Amino acid sequence: VTIGSDPLVAAVDWGTSRLRIWLLDASGAVLAERRSDEGLLGVGSEGFSAVLERHLGEMNAPATTSVVICGMAGSRQGWLEVPYVAVPARLADVLAKAVPLPGGRRDVRIIPGVAQKSPDAPDVMRGEETQLAGITRSLAEGRHLVCMPGTHSKWVDIENGTITRFGTWLTGELFSVLTQHSILRHAVGTKPASVSPGNSVFRSWLEQALASPADLTSRLFKIRASTLLADLGPDDAAAALSGLLIGTEIGSARTQFGWRQRDVVVLIASGALGELYAEALRIAEHRVEAVDADTAVRAGLFEAALGHLADGGSERAKA
Amino acid sequence: VTIGSDPLVAAVDWGTSRLRIWLLDASGAVLAERRSDEGLLGVGSEGFSAVLERHLGEMNAPATTSVVICGMAGSRQGWLEVPYVAVPARLADVLAKAVPLPGGRRDVRIIPGVAQKSPDAPDVMRGEETQLAGITRSLAEGRHLVCMPGTHSKWVDIENGTITRFGTWLTGELFSVLTQHSILRHAVGTKPASVSPGNSVFRSWLEQALASPADLTSRLFKIRASTLLADLGPDDAAAALSGLLIGTEIGSARTQFGWRQRDVVVLIASGALGELYAEALRIAEHRVEAVDADTAVRAGLFEAALGHLADGGSERAKA
Repeated sequence: VTIGSDPLVAAVDWGTSRLRIWLLDASGAVLAERRSDEGLLGVGSEGFSAVLERHLGEMNAPATTSVVICGMAGSRQGWLEVPYVAVPARLADVLAKAVPLPGGRRDVRIIPGVAQKSPDAPDVMRGEETQLAGITRSLAEGRHLVCMPGTHSKWVDIENGTITRFGTWLTGELFSVLTQHSILRHAVGTKPASVSPGNSVFRSWLEQALASPADLTSRLFKIRASTLLADLGPDDAAAALSGLLIGTEIGSARTQFGWRQRDVVVLIASGALGELYAEALRIAEHRVEAVDADTAVRAGLFEAALGHLADGGSERAKA
Repeated sequence: VTIGSDPLVAAVDWGTSRLRIWLLDASGAVLAERRSDEGLLGVGSEGFSAVLERHLGEMNAPATTSVVICGMAGSRQGWLEVPYVAVPARLADVLAKAVPLPGGRRDVRIIPGVAQKSPDAPDVMRGEETQLAGITRSLAEGRHLVCMPGTHSKWVDIENGTITRFGTWLTGELFSVLTQHSILRHAVGTKPASVSPGNSVFRSWLEQALASPADLTSRLFKIRASTLLADLGPDDAAAALSGLLIGTEIGSARTQFGWRQRDVVVLIASGALGELYAEALRIAEHRVEAVDADTAVRAGLFEAALGHLADGGSERAKA
């Protein structure tokens, strides 16, 4: 890797299954990037510090470059448990509460997650708060509904840079678990094709789910029945399941948050999943403002780094 | 096994994971009973006929005793695929359409399943139709809503002995798949305790699910969040998941079928699951008429046998 200008910070998104590292210069531009499967579950006996230093070494990062981390590395099973910040949570405050790791050669900080401790809607996030912080500047004043699809999809109500409320939908994990371990594995086959946003089966099951999201667990069996009675093939069964789960998520989330059709949804996502959700939200009659998830998390990590540098947070690294 | 009177028929409930055989006399009384794990998935290379004959031999059933079977033995992956009877399906007609197996020493018949072929609500049952036939005589004229909980819970609308409409909820399978393969396995632990109907956590999550069955996939994650934020223990997490799934099923089913609180639900179930659903239905403000599932299926199989004997269906066995 050739580095044209000096790195200011290593921005790290350390999730359950993936690790991503970007070396950023003082303008926030990407000097180098690494992606690996060494998420929380893949770190093993090498340990978090050694995995990080190995990657930074391979990226030719100077030994003094500071590091800002978000995601599950801050969870109980991670590198260092960083206490949650409770809602209502001002995103700038969440970044400022990044916790420095004790010892070590360089300044390494982990951004806290956010918790909603109300007894009727307990919820947690780790990593998404940093993506949200990364888009806050680009949002107008006022209230915004944000959708962040994935294994555990998050929907977040943001008002003037503060998370007021959020929830998690198990959409991606249900798709994976049901296609691998339930009776639907017979319907979907061993290798479900990725679902195209233009697929008419996806659209039809999505629309049914939007019309009555309460009926998910009976509709699941109807996918199986459709393979017996209507020769629904494996790819269409996967599209049906995807439409059913995503439609249920959208129908449930917008009702819980008191939003309606026509309202704008800010969609933070990447790649094929982003395209699928963008189409799903349009079918659900929302206007969509799409933001790339990688760009968002990088911007949030960079902003956290700038704040700590301004605070003198790099003193130790200089010493 | 000592047999006091001559057996009239071997009544067989042959499901996906279980095989149950009862030898019945001419009054329908049980002379002998066998239960085994040799369901559809456990038959293996021995084959259906050999497994059946081995059990009948061990029960000292005469070689001429006729056999009536219901359940997945009549499915595509079973002993002989028996075509579904379409709704509206008169239960007496379904029994009369039992298909004799070709060849063999004795008269063996398999009762067909029932299919709902409407494009917006495709569904199938195999085995439940025989339980329903077994309780038809005891139901008053008119319309009845029947709940049959299990791996794939069935709700059935019956009017004057005819299935007019039904649906399947994946409740039991979701409980099993989620506790074994999803993030909830951390919450529930390796061996979830059986849930007691009086458990206050069960009740509380059931009531929430009844209030908004559309929110199942977000409530699933709240079980996980409750273990992190509120120290929800493994047994209570299992109770929460059970209450959530059963409450979602009841809330969805009664709305789909146009029934209300206060209406009677006929509950066909056995053992602990039956007690749990009876309590759940009462919490949901239904009046419950409970029927034992084993008694129901035996009565249906016996009625099928009587019909075939009256029809001369035992000619071959006599020859």
